[in-house]
Amino acid sequence: MSLFEGLSAFPITPADPSGRVDTVALARVLNRLADARVDSIGLLGSTGAYAFLTREERRRAVEAAMATVGGRIPVIVGVGALRTDDAQALARDARAAGANGLLLAPVSYTPLRDEEVYAHFAAVAESGELPLAIYNNPGTTRFTFSRELIGRLSEVANIAAVKMPLPADGDFAGELDAIRSVTSPSFRIGYSGDWDCAASLLAGGDAWYSVAAGLLPVETLALARAAQSGDVAQTQRLNAAFEPLWSLFREFGSFRVVYVIAELLGLCKVEPLRPVLPLPDTARDRVAAALIVLRKHFA
Amino acid sequence: MSLFEGLSAFPITPADPSGRVDTVALARVLNRLADARVDSIGLLGSTGAYAFLTREERRRAVEAAMATVGGRIPVIVGVGALRTDDAQALARDARAAGANGLLLAPVSYTPLRDEEVYAHFAAVAESGELPLAIYNNPGTTRFTFSRELIGRLSEVANIAAVKMPLPADGDFAGELDAIRSVTSPSFRIGYSGDWDCAASLLAGGDAWYSVAAGLLPVETLALARAAQSGDVAQTQRLNAAFEPLWSLFREFGSFRVVYVIAELLGLCKVEPLRPVLPLPDTARDRVAAALIVLRKHFA
Repeated sequence: MSLFEGLSAFPITPADPSGRVDTVALARVLNRLADARVDSIGLLGSTGAYAFLTREERRRAVEAAMATVGGRIPVIVGVGALRTDDAQALARDARAAGANGLLLAPVSYTPLRDEEVYAHFAAVAESGELPLAIYNNPGTTRFTFSRELIGRLSEVANIAAVKMPLPADGDFAGELDAIRSVTSPSFRIGYSGDWDCAASLLAGGDAWYSVAAGLLPVETLALARAAQSGDVAQTQRLNAAFEPLWSLFREFGSFRVVYVIAELLGLCKVEPLRPVLPLPDTARDRVAAALIVLRKHFA
Repeated sequence: MSLFEGLSAFPITPADPSGRVDTVALARVLNRLADARVDSIGLLGSTGAYAFLTREERRRAVEAAMATVGGRIPVIVGVGALRTDDAQALARDARAAGANGLLLAPVSYTPLRDEEVYAHFAAVAESGELPLAIYNNPGTTRFTFSRELIGRLSEVANIAAVKMPLPADGDFAGELDAIRSVTSPSFRIGYSGDWDCAASLLAGGDAWYSVAAGLLPVETLALARAAQSGDVAQTQRLNAAFEPLWSLFREFGSFRVVYVIAELLGLCKVEPLRPVLPLPDTARDRVAAALIVLRKHFA
């Protein structure tokens, strides 16, 4: 299987309030993913707070991850940064630590133009010397990749996949066809946005980049496998068990919810780095209830 | 006059491709602004590339600025950062270097909620111990300040002003009335978006936060003074002379255009930090033509 296929689990990166990564807690989170046999791990994704961590702490996280799960599960590392030279350095760090692939978002302050994003990706892909997925996440970067730009980038050496946001019109099949028409057969197209990603796999998407799988790998894997096998009824049944959690993800942003899940699972008690605030108590109660629904279903 | 009134000039921060600030070139740019007697200088704003520079380089820029124009022109320093603790450190650095005020944008990766932005601003305003302007710039931060949030923030100690984007409907008077109805009489409301800021002053706005003034202070000051005096005909005449430049700002983003102006004026020959690319040659020719139009008018 290709690196950018199947269920990719995106773990949190536990850190103290000063941004120092807790590598022991991180190893605990990662071992669960390896034990569940997810298809890959998306380290330092948006869920892994990459944008909030220094280069040094990101290097420590990758080194800890490779020491924990290297050789057992492929690790894809987020290397986004505001400056091209910084993103290149992060890509080299990830490769030096033994990472298997890279994930790159066009993080920006000044809104970027297509030519700038193209040159940025080409530079980082060259420095990284690893298979790289385009992280198309307009919700955090404000940059929207045109189909034409994805097509051009897919021809750059090392750029092998794209991680897409959910299509506004819900038409996965139409979008997959359109992107496949401008990319080579080996180029892989996956989705993020957990609440609708089982549907993306049913429609023939290559990968589900999943926040939930970072903490609930067994349950999420069951849902992914049902969808990959084309079992619509079972997919709908399992997805319904996740619905209370999806509802919280949509309402509060999954980034705030995962810290509560990690604490309720007894994995680590950490908070997001400020300015992001922990969930209010009422929402925490709903997270606990959502986990009970899931557990009952998978008991 | 209050710190956050009148024409605030936003200079570029000349830096080499590794992000090292050229303090000699910066001093050259700043002396022009002091000689022209702009009302304040907005150092390390979006135009000053603050988001792309390290804490150390930002400190060097503030120290160079205070050594050059301190005591002659009030200096407002942009202290935005993704993490609250980093923004607090930048605010303390600016104060230690002798800055007169702060400018803070809710820079984000994870889209922020109102409570998070409130807590972030309160923390930075407390650490900075200087008058602070809210930098409301949805184009770069993706965060939109509600009127209610501006009202609540205006009650926080040290928060004294807001820098607004152009209103979508062009109704400055209506927006000024609405914000003034939820803030104290001493709270100041200014605008950025050079091409329509003379109109904001005519409508009673307190400040124009200007990109053009960072390199063309004499010409921009003439336009600002015409608008502040309520001379509609003269304001329109002068604004028309700027129109070729405004057109380039709207089309390419002012951040890319100012580097060409700085070079054409003989101030410094630097490029924006990657991933931002220099303007294409055809656009450079248009910048040169726009400057000729301006010079003819002010000759």
